Amino acid sequence: MKKIGFIGLGNMGKPMALNLVKKGYSLKVFDLQPAPTEELKAAGAEVMASAIDAGNDVDVLITMLPSSPHVEALYLSDTGLLAHTAGKPIVIDCSTIAPESARKVAKAAQQFGIPMLDAPVSGGTAGAEAGTLTFIIGGDATILERTRPIFEAMGKNIFHAGNNGAGQVAKICNNMLLAIHMAGTAEALQLGVNNGLDASVLSEIMSKSSGRNWSLELYNPYPGVMENVPASRGYQGGFMCELMNKDLGLAMEAMMHSKSTSPMGALAKSLYAMHCNNGHSKEDFSSIQKLYSGKS
Amino acid sequence: MKKIGFIGLGNMGKPMALNLVKKGYSLKVFDLQPAPTEELKAAGAEVMASAIDAGNDVDVLITMLPSSPHVEALYLSDTGLLAHTAGKPIVIDCSTIAPESARKVAKAAQQFGIPMLDAPVSGGTAGAEAGTLTFIIGGDATILERTRPIFEAMGKNIFHAGNNGAGQVAKICNNMLLAIHMAGTAEALQLGVNNGLDASVLSEIMSKSSGRNWSLELYNPYPGVMENVPASRGYQGGFMCELMNKDLGLAMEAMMHSKSTSPMGALAKSLYAMHCNNGHSKEDFSSIQKLYSGKS
Amino acid sequence: MKKIGFIGLGNMGKPMALNLVKKGYSLKVFDLQPAPTEELKAAGAEVMASAIDAGNDVDVLITMLPSSPHVEALYLSDTGLLAHTAGKPIVIDCSTIAPESARKVAKAAQQFGIPMLDAPVSGGTAGAEAGTLTFIIGGDATILERTRPIFEAMGKNIFHAGNNGAGQVAKICNNMLLAIHMAGTAEALQLGVNNGLDASVLSEIMSKSSGRNWSLELYNPYPGVMENVPASRGYQGGFMCELMNKDLGLAMEAMMHSKSTSPMGALAKSLYAMHCNNGHSKEDFSSIQKLYSGKS
Amino acid sequence: MKKIGFIGLGNMGKPMALNLVKKGYSLKVFDLQPAPTEELKAAGAEVMASAIDAGNDVDVLITMLPSSPHVEALYLSDTGLLAHTAGKPIVIDCSTIAPESARKVAKAAQQFGIPMLDAPVSGGTAGAEAGTLTFIIGGDATILERTRPIFEAMGKNIFHAGNNGAGQVAKICNNMLLAIHMAGTAEALQLGVNNGLDASVLSEIMSKSSGRNWSLELYNPYPGVMENVPASRGYQGGFMCELMNKDLGLAMEAMMHSKSTSPMGALAKSLYAMHCNNGHSKEDFSSIQKLYSGKS
Repeated sequence: MKKIGFIGLGNMGKPMALNLVKKGYSLKVFDLQPAPTEELKAAGAEVMASAIDAGNDVDVLITMLPSSPHVEALYLSDTGLLAHTAGKPIVIDCSTIAPESARKVAKAAQQFGIPMLDAPVSGGTAGAEAGTLTFIIGGDATILERTRPIFEAMGKNIFHAGNNGAGQVAKICNNMLLAIHMAGTAEALQLGVNNGLDASVLSEIMSKSSGRNWSLELYNPYPGVMENVPASRGYQGGFMCELMNKDLGLAMEAMMHSKSTSPMGALAKSLYAMHCNNGHSKEDFSSIQKLYSGKS
Repeated sequence: MKKIGFIGLGNMGKPMALNLVKKGYSLKVFDLQPAPTEELKAAGAEVMASAIDAGNDVDVLITMLPSSPHVEALYLSDTGLLAHTAGKPIVIDCSTIAPESARKVAKAAQQFGIPMLDAPVSGGTAGAEAGTLTFIIGGDATILERTRPIFEAMGKNIFHAGNNGAGQVAKICNNMLLAIHMAGTAEALQLGVNNGLDASVLSEIMSKSSGRNWSLELYNPYPGVMENVPASRGYQGGFMCELMNKDLGLAMEAMMHSKSTSPMGALAKSLYAMHCNNGHSKEDFSSIQKLYSGKS
Repeated sequence: MKKIGFIGLGNMGKPMALNLVKKGYSLKVFDLQPAPTEELKAAGAEVMASAIDAGNDVDVLITMLPSSPHVEALYLSDTGLLAHTAGKPIVIDCSTIAPESARKVAKAAQQFGIPMLDAPVSGGTAGAEAGTLTFIIGGDATILERTRPIFEAMGKNIFHAGNNGAGQVAKICNNMLLAIHMAGTAEALQLGVNNGLDASVLSEIMSKSSGRNWSLELYNPYPGVMENVPASRGYQGGFMCELMNKDLGLAMEAMMHSKSTSPMGALAKSLYAMHCNNGHSKEDFSSIQKLYSGKS
Repeated sequence: MKKIGFIGLGNMGKPMALNLVKKGYSLKVFDLQPAPTEELKAAGAEVMASAIDAGNDVDVLITMLPSSPHVEALYLSDTGLLAHTAGKPIVIDCSTIAPESARKVAKAAQQFGIPMLDAPVSGGTAGAEAGTLTFIIGGDATILERTRPIFEAMGKNIFHAGNNGAGQVAKICNNMLLAIHMAGTAEALQLGVNNGLDASVLSEIMSKSSGRNWSLELYNPYPGVMENVPASRGYQGGFMCELMNKDLGLAMEAMMHSKSTSPMGALAKSLYAMHCNNGHSKEDFSSIQKLYSGKS
């Protein structure tokens, strides 16, 4: 389990791959962009000419891509990885994609005799760099155990959510709930401020009461309440609204696919889409606070 | 500060008053119902024939009533407490009412030279009995300090939210946020279950991730995930939906009064009202889970 | 039924009163502002020094005021109209206020032997000037019949909704439904445009299909689809967002008072409040279209 | 333009095909179910052994299928219609599917030299039987003109919405707006009734005021207000909730695909999904009224 292929060296993938190199793994990497591959090369990785080359003769193949179509195309096309990878590595897809896509690719992999895990992450670029990501994993538990050291080289919390696709489902549920309490926290703080309260005092009270939640305690969206969070630096950095909007889109698809109903999640989706449309898509998702500011 | 008048011996008021007696305070109590007054009498309190009698010649007068009109009528009418109380006690109103009502009564009290605090509580009947309530207090900080031992005889956390009315505002904001993340948690859990996940596994994952919140961790709404919560006993006991619905009504009034907008809170209000109308008003508020169960 | 008192000569009241003068009624008018009273005086009305003077020795007294507190203060205070009006005229309140306020004032009027109708209007300032208003009336049907010519002097459609307060309830329900289909129409048009359709073609199709509604057909919110509507002149004129926001507030109060649930209405309220907070409160209510424009 | 292939003889397709036979067209039909093919045979149509046979040597090929995957599979697979149809008929797909699917199939058809129209219908089974359907059509206007007599043999209103896919977009927008004003109408009527009004009186007033819309006027959801609508017969017949729920799902997909935001539409989707999950999926969509009935 020492030879790893790594495809997708974006904002998340690059620091994850660098951490693997630092921990002594031997990496074959591929990305269409030259800059991150140069950086990996300098760190000691072998840069490959194609995705298929990166997947050949490795123990484990990791992919980190933007969306379901990218993942399906990479693995499933006639010229894709499953049909052309030599050596049948364990495949770990860390992309955040639709559970259905994850299940579809895993099923196809199985037919090629390739074991697969879906392992979306949370923790952002900061977590990727610090090696403190959370992995939420779907697939066979024994495969997870065999690859656990690799996950531990990149992250801190490693969860097994269930069968293939379950990692994606759990991440989607978590992020939908996060969007709901972030928007709710922003509303509650604005309601308090508009009624004469100090946002810091109100945050302190609710943090010790039943309103308590991650957004309020660790990622307070009201400017000035907390240091070292995006709200204290003009909502720069962090987790962009457009990414939250994307994850909420996956939640809506999972909701419709399973004939579920999620009115609060659907409203959070509407509010984030509206906020993105108003020009805030590149700001941190706690900037949803702006949607409530001002008084008529 | 040893003589206390206490008006309103309902589900919350009675155990609060009993705790004061136990801690050695001398109580004059009044309620229209005979049963709780008998209980207080047996514990050592003096039962009075009228609200005004309960407020005479005491150091502190505490009231615990159902709603704004009750509070306004008790204090402000021509035959009311402010006009007829001898001795100018410090007045502490523990009712959950509209901030405007709290401010109106406090202002009238001031004109009679009577200092007043609004001090709504959270923690439910269990907290009232155990003496572990949270008090969220609006009014003069020096008055709060003078009465702190009395609050500590009934509760564990004592917060100063700001000027008169601020205690009500902070409680309303907290409970609106609580309703939002309770509904959101129920939705996220149902979405996961409908997509094949185990509710306990998903709860465990989200509790250690950014979806974390009080409803998920301490009051899980999905049956079977957590022991000793209403969801594990058919949603009996706890904090009734109709009370959450009432608090959300206060949030809507505060929202409109301050020209704020709270779409997530307004949707939570709609969902709780719908759930109450469907016959669940006496169940615990985590029974909102039922609104999402089933698949079409 | 020829002598009429008229109190409240604002944007709506002034043209209504002018129409009554034109139709030959003898008017005693009162307003705190000098400009509209001068205009009425020039038209032939008698300008009075006080509200009570305007209500003395008339057959019918009409009031047109901004909100519930104004109406309650005018009629119910110790120095108010009910206690001091000589001659017991039929009272018609054309203000849009809370049904509870309307019922409270009507009940008090009855105790003074004064018959009262609540008669909120729709049709805006244009309808007031043209004498084509719609009156939605609560109160005794025989009183309505006796005053019908007066309503016909100011309006075109005269509806009897039920007992006292029913006029207000019906108007509130109508305007809540109007807000819902205006917002819905704006969304549907934007969804079509964002998917490549022409707003005029889509409006034409939906106007002849089941999506048909008043907002789409007569008050199209998408700029350029229809002439002579606010959307074609930068959303100037018409029915201001802040007035719609006020009426939606009355709907929310009626909803909570009757333990009803109106999730679509509550969301429309949230959206209009958000839109007002974003600086559009003085624009026509069809400007809600702007909330959806742009793409992320 | 006399020889027509027709694939898909379900609740909608069968009466549409029968109308074409009645108007003198020569039909080749195909369906997997024997019952409707027997009925068509008895009426004079030629029953074919496969979909490909139905599409061979005809002037026009019409399909009426349940969803996007069915349509894509039928036309696009290696064994599909586009690759194997002899004679290059004009293809008209009357299914209600995702605009993207419609565009994808039309583009593929073009590559085979086959002109295609997307022509979803509204009007329900009653309209299909009576030949009074509405067709909302996307594709080349000249192709539409050449096939207009065929549309007129099945329907009354024929709209040209724009290029390929535009028919689907316009239908989706219309039905989303319909769902919004149906839910809104149900809410407004219940709010009025809960505040003491008669549903018929309120319907009459709003139908002549700005609340006016198709649901209120022609399809009133409140039992007893209107004869000959589903609400007057226990919500049986009509347009099933599960079909509205499906169309709202298409609206959500179109919304996300185009980075639009439709909060009212998303809430209507949530409410219909909830209503379906509560066991009402087979009832008419006006039964959403039940979601609001009762009082807490």
